[in-house]
Amino acid sequence: MPNKYLPSWNPGEALTAIEAFLAASSSIDPHKRVAVFDNDGTLWCEKPLYPQLAFFVHELAGMAKADPALNERVEYAALLKGDFAAVESIGVPQVAQALAELFIGFSAEEFAARSQQFIRAGVNPLLKRPFAECIYLPMLELLEALRAHGFATFVVTGGGTEFVRGVSHELYGVPPEGVVGTLISYEYSDIDGAPVLRRTGQMSGTANEGAEKVVHIQQHLGRRPCFAAGNSAGDADMINWAISGDGPSLGILIDHDDAEREAAYASVAGTFETSEPIVDVGLRSGWTVVSMAHDWSTVFA
Amino acid sequence: MPNKYLPSWNPGEALTAIEAFLAASSSIDPHKRVAVFDNDGTLWCEKPLYPQLAFFVHELAGMAKADPALNERVEYAALLKGDFAAVESIGVPQVAQALAELFIGFSAEEFAARSQQFIRAGVNPLLKRPFAECIYLPMLELLEALRAHGFATFVVTGGGTEFVRGVSHELYGVPPEGVVGTLISYEYSDIDGAPVLRRTGQMSGTANEGAEKVVHIQQHLGRRPCFAAGNSAGDADMINWAISGDGPSLGILIDHDDAEREAAYASVAGTFETSEPIVDVGLRSGWTVVSMAHDWSTVFA
Repeated sequence: MPNKYLPSWNPGEALTAIEAFLAASSSIDPHKRVAVFDNDGTLWCEKPLYPQLAFFVHELAGMAKADPALNERVEYAALLKGDFAAVESIGVPQVAQALAELFIGFSAEEFAARSQQFIRAGVNPLLKRPFAECIYLPMLELLEALRAHGFATFVVTGGGTEFVRGVSHELYGVPPEGVVGTLISYEYSDIDGAPVLRRTGQMSGTANEGAEKVVHIQQHLGRRPCFAAGNSAGDADMINWAISGDGPSLGILIDHDDAEREAAYASVAGTFETSEPIVDVGLRSGWTVVSMAHDWSTVFA
Repeated sequence: MPNKYLPSWNPGEALTAIEAFLAASSSIDPHKRVAVFDNDGTLWCEKPLYPQLAFFVHELAGMAKADPALNERVEYAALLKGDFAAVESIGVPQVAQALAELFIGFSAEEFAARSQQFIRAGVNPLLKRPFAECIYLPMLELLEALRAHGFATFVVTGGGTEFVRGVSHELYGVPPEGVVGTLISYEYSDIDGAPVLRRTGQMSGTANEGAEKVVHIQQHLGRRPCFAAGNSAGDADMINWAISGDGPSLGILIDHDDAEREAAYASVAGTFETSEPIVDVGLRSGWTVVSMAHDWSTVFA
């Protein structure tokens, strides 16, 4: 009989570990039932490209039609040509900075409206369906199962906080304040009683990856998680943090090994010299590795 | 007949404005029902001194007993002698920095345990009752009334986020992630699989006052409030921001005019040359001014 909360999960080690954790969670102080989920590659599909990058390029293309001068900037030219070798050679941080500058002066509402529209209507070129439908059904079930067991559920993403929180409630049941990501700076001004809050082109604080995910979980959420799910090296610290406290805990790693239903690709941890597949890191670290191919009976709703 | 949700409020303009706002809130998109409350002087008593300052001095005194060398540092000496003229002359930012350094290396849990203990057991020297009982009952009723009308309720404080969130759930029904305040930096390290997260002595980002409250509300909570309550110049931008969006809104200013039951003091906005009582700012800005003396039948539970 399939698990009541997790009908899209096949029997196996992963489901058994999740069921055991849910059963054990009744012994956890309700205030400490905190679960964090990475987003790209953990809740939604990140191949063939991050939805946020697809959004930025889409917006850039529209803006460059209205203002052809944008084509002259090297970062934009590389993106508009789809020349990802040039993007690499310019450097991802510099390209990301250029993209952030596209939205200088936008209000949070304007940015949210555009990103919501894109996520709902933009089509993933690999899966040929809207980005909003490239969400892993088994992970939605897991979010619900955790909430049914009294957990507060949060999204902790390397992506832009404002991009994800515009859709986090409708996609994941997580309110805007439950999204911890990479933040943009804002500028507030009040001219004769007309208050205005506008995006700048600068990041606020540090990018939300690796150890910074742990720091930002404390700063933003204020509680240590006992459950964490991720799929890449940028999630390793967060998962280790979640599983090394007192009491029952669970760390989940999604292994993208399903070329048929999604994409097969290996994430790697470490430096160029000491790289190690993230699945191996997970196995030796006590994480529960979830095989998309074997552990999920259904991938998308 | 007293208001069902607000039995500690006397009939008058303030109660009428609150009731009208609650009635009108059914027309607000549930996702936009967002209410923010300042803490010091709005939810809990800030006289004769901020509870957080009392906590820091209490901890300092304990530490100085164990380590008398602490008495040598000018900032600590001024605080331990209660010499607030010296504190002023050294400068509040420098003294605050010295106090933050007392907790370098603490985990979030250690800091929370100490601050919880102090707030529950430490006694307000003016009111002769524990700080945890110097909470305004009418404001607790207002928090509940807003939640009963579908509002998400948050605390937006100039104080330390970690100090307030340690007690925000038990005192206000606001979970840790619902507290936006001034943040401390953390350092994460993982030594041979033993992850550790420790406080540093540095602030993270900017102090949460004035325009920064508006910026941090967007960054941390991700939604514009349509209700804001405060009591000082540091809340003016937040209140103006809340009441200048579309649709029904309400801005509340607590006027501390009750020398008998609490303390009578006037907060002032502006520079030395153009100072203006905050009550006057509120009246000309369309805020609802709440007189503790007249609008509240009961102040503390």
